Amino acid sequence: MNTVIEALRTGQSFIIATHLNPDGDALGSAIALGMALESLGKNVNVYDRDGVPATYSFLPGIKMIKTSAEGLKADILILLDCNNLTRSGLEGFDAFRTSVVVDHHETDGDFGDIKWIDPHIPATGLMVLRIIRALGVKLTRDMAQNIYTAISLDTGTFRYSNTTAEALRAGAELTEAGAEPGYVADRLYSNWSSSRFALFRMVMESLDIQDNACFMKISLSMLGKTDTNQGDTENFVNFPLRMDSISASVLLKENEPGKWRVSMRSKGMINVAHIAEKFKGGGHLNAAGCSMEGQYEEIKALLIKELNSLVQPS
Amino acid sequence: MNTVIEALRTGQSFIIATHLNPDGDALGSAIALGMALESLGKNVNVYDRDGVPATYSFLPGIKMIKTSAEGLKADILILLDCNNLTRSGLEGFDAFRTSVVVDHHETDGDFGDIKWIDPHIPATGLMVLRIIRALGVKLTRDMAQNIYTAISLDTGTFRYSNTTAEALRAGAELTEAGAEPGYVADRLYSNWSSSRFALFRMVMESLDIQDNACFMKISLSMLGKTDTNQGDTENFVNFPLRMDSISASVLLKENEPGKWRVSMRSKGMINVAHIAEKFKGGGHLNAAGCSMEGQYEEIKALLIKELNSLVQPS
Repeated sequence: MNTVIEALRTGQSFIIATHLNPDGDALGSAIALGMALESLGKNVNVYDRDGVPATYSFLPGIKMIKTSAEGLKADILILLDCNNLTRSGLEGFDAFRTSVVVDHHETDGDFGDIKWIDPHIPATGLMVLRIIRALGVKLTRDMAQNIYTAISLDTGTFRYSNTTAEALRAGAELTEAGAEPGYVADRLYSNWSSSRFALFRMVMESLDIQDNACFMKISLSMLGKTDTNQGDTENFVNFPLRMDSISASVLLKENEPGKWRVSMRSKGMINVAHIAEKFKGGGHLNAAGCSMEGQYEEIKALLIKELNSLVQPS
Repeated sequence: MNTVIEALRTGQSFIIATHLNPDGDALGSAIALGMALESLGKNVNVYDRDGVPATYSFLPGIKMIKTSAEGLKADILILLDCNNLTRSGLEGFDAFRTSVVVDHHETDGDFGDIKWIDPHIPATGLMVLRIIRALGVKLTRDMAQNIYTAISLDTGTFRYSNTTAEALRAGAELTEAGAEPGYVADRLYSNWSSSRFALFRMVMESLDIQDNACFMKISLSMLGKTDTNQGDTENFVNFPLRMDSISASVLLKENEPGKWRVSMRSKGMINVAHIAEKFKGGGHLNAAGCSMEGQYEEIKALLIKELNSLVQPS
């Protein structure tokens, strides 16, 4: 971290870029760091090509996010919550002298003159909080709300197993600085449109339990009937995992007629990436995906067969 | 708090009693305090007439809970997370010399020789943590897991607006002492039986949105079809409040043919207690209940009329 602090102290102009399809950790971290650097009199631009999902419009300072990098140049490019230019939508961009990477994801390539990458830290927001302390910047209410949101998102507001004592203590410090736990949770988890809720009810109706696995679908006609889009389907696949008896949850989303995106989630040692790889997809132990073509019932039958070889009925 | 500490130091035998239909704050607080007093060589009995819901069977030391007070006597009776004998199922019980009340609910009566009642504290678990510190007892892993669960339950794991910096900092301290945030959250929120999930799906099918309010039902036949009981319905009433556009949520549960328990939840300044009181029930601004008789559709129509006078369409 020390070389990062040194670079931030000496640089005069900064571009902070985070990843495509940004989440609360990306946006909250980027805005808070941007505010901290501005408070030191630096020139700062914050960039995310994909812009701000409606969920995060409540973040103070969210208007700092620019969706075009045209004409931007700076002493230092900081990649936050990602660690290569492709992931930030800046492939080929070179209008900077030094690049700094601050991220808690596994590295993917070797981009970055100065790097602080630590996959053991639950959220990039926590890294930004450490940076703000090291810079000696006063933590404002706005920075605190952004970092609190960042940590909340990546720890499921302290519910995921990555939740550490440091994350909780940061939550306390940020709350003292003005972050509002109840308000942030409300914005993150109680912001469903009635259309999204209607789609959720249809997805629940489609749920089919097969031993320890379950299957759900979102067809194009379901999206049409409820006036929703793919963005409204976030996290639906996780919902049935609250059942003790369910080890794997599969959601098929129809992108084009007969073309489905398959999302799989699992608990414990059920490796859904194995199945995704069989169909040219990928992922991790407990979260994976692939694309498949055909009728819903046919694809489901194929996946049931694959899952049966992994999931033993209890 | 000082007089409470003095009483706990001088007493030799204790009965710790908490409220009927106990939740995680009641049970976790009672067990942790029981363990702390035992570590000081005291004789301790922990009592809850209603016993332990399956959700909480994971708590270390949960076997300390006794469901009969017969033959129990002690220097000191401690009421935890409640503040009168009726609420603890001990009406008329007098086999103690001194009574101590530690609670964060509004007082209901004036029971207690020594009282520490503070409705501004989000969970009784936090009060027990302060007591353990003041007693100079070493916080064990088992105490920490119990108190972490207690605080989690009453703050929605740091999502409700009662979440304070103290609660978060306690979470950090408890995690350092061995509490497991991910495991506790899993036990509290991902422990649904498949029967409960089946009931949830039926309740979602029953959902009817009327302007900014929504209505759901759980009939006796729905309980019968899914092989579930009233205990499986916990929190269902809150679910639709995740919709931005919904200000009040009403769930009717049929206890006997044609006899319904009405649970109401609201957001912001919609005072559902006003409605409950009209039907001889009660509650608070955002959570209230009453009992009503008749056909579901009739009762719903009555309640819609009442809610229309409170909830303005957006």
